[in-house]
Amino acid sequence: MKAIVNVYLKNGVLDPQGKAVHHALGSLGFLGVKDVRIGKQIVLELEATDEQKAREEVQEMSETLLANTVIEDFNIEIV
Amino acid sequence: MKAIVNVYLKNGVLDPQGKAVHHALGSLGFLGVKDVRIGKQIVLELEATDEQKAREEVQEMSETLLANTVIEDFNIEIV
Repeated sequence: MKAIVNVYLKNGVLDPQGKAVHHALGSLGFLGVKDVRIGKQIVLELEATDEQKAREEVQEMSETLLANTVIEDFNIEIV
Repeated sequence: MKAIVNVYLKNGVLDPQGKAVHHALGSLGFLGVKDVRIGKQIVLELEATDEQKAREEVQEMSETLLANTVIEDFNIEIV
């Protein structure tokens, strides 16, 4: 079973990497971009076969290690 | 219009960041994880209103700047 955790900065938290990419896109002539935010996508290959159990385990992993919940939010997809 | 670009390492390309997270999860007692791969999720706020046009533009941005297509693949979602 596969789990995908998307970790992204909370609204209002400055994203310098996104700002840099936004600026670079502008320099390359892509002028139709209003904002860029950059997050992480973590793909976990799990041994669990029960979706509910997998989701709970990944929720705990995310809160403990994968996301810094002070400045980041995350969502979990089980595939 | 919003576009999400998921950039991830191609199969077979070593992912040291994923390996480190895998190891850390094991140390924390999460033993049911077989593999971890870490990619980027880039969220673009676009001025375009036409989905087809937005997709083409984001495809070009991804090939030019967002992904290193030698070692990375990407997919695009228009939201």
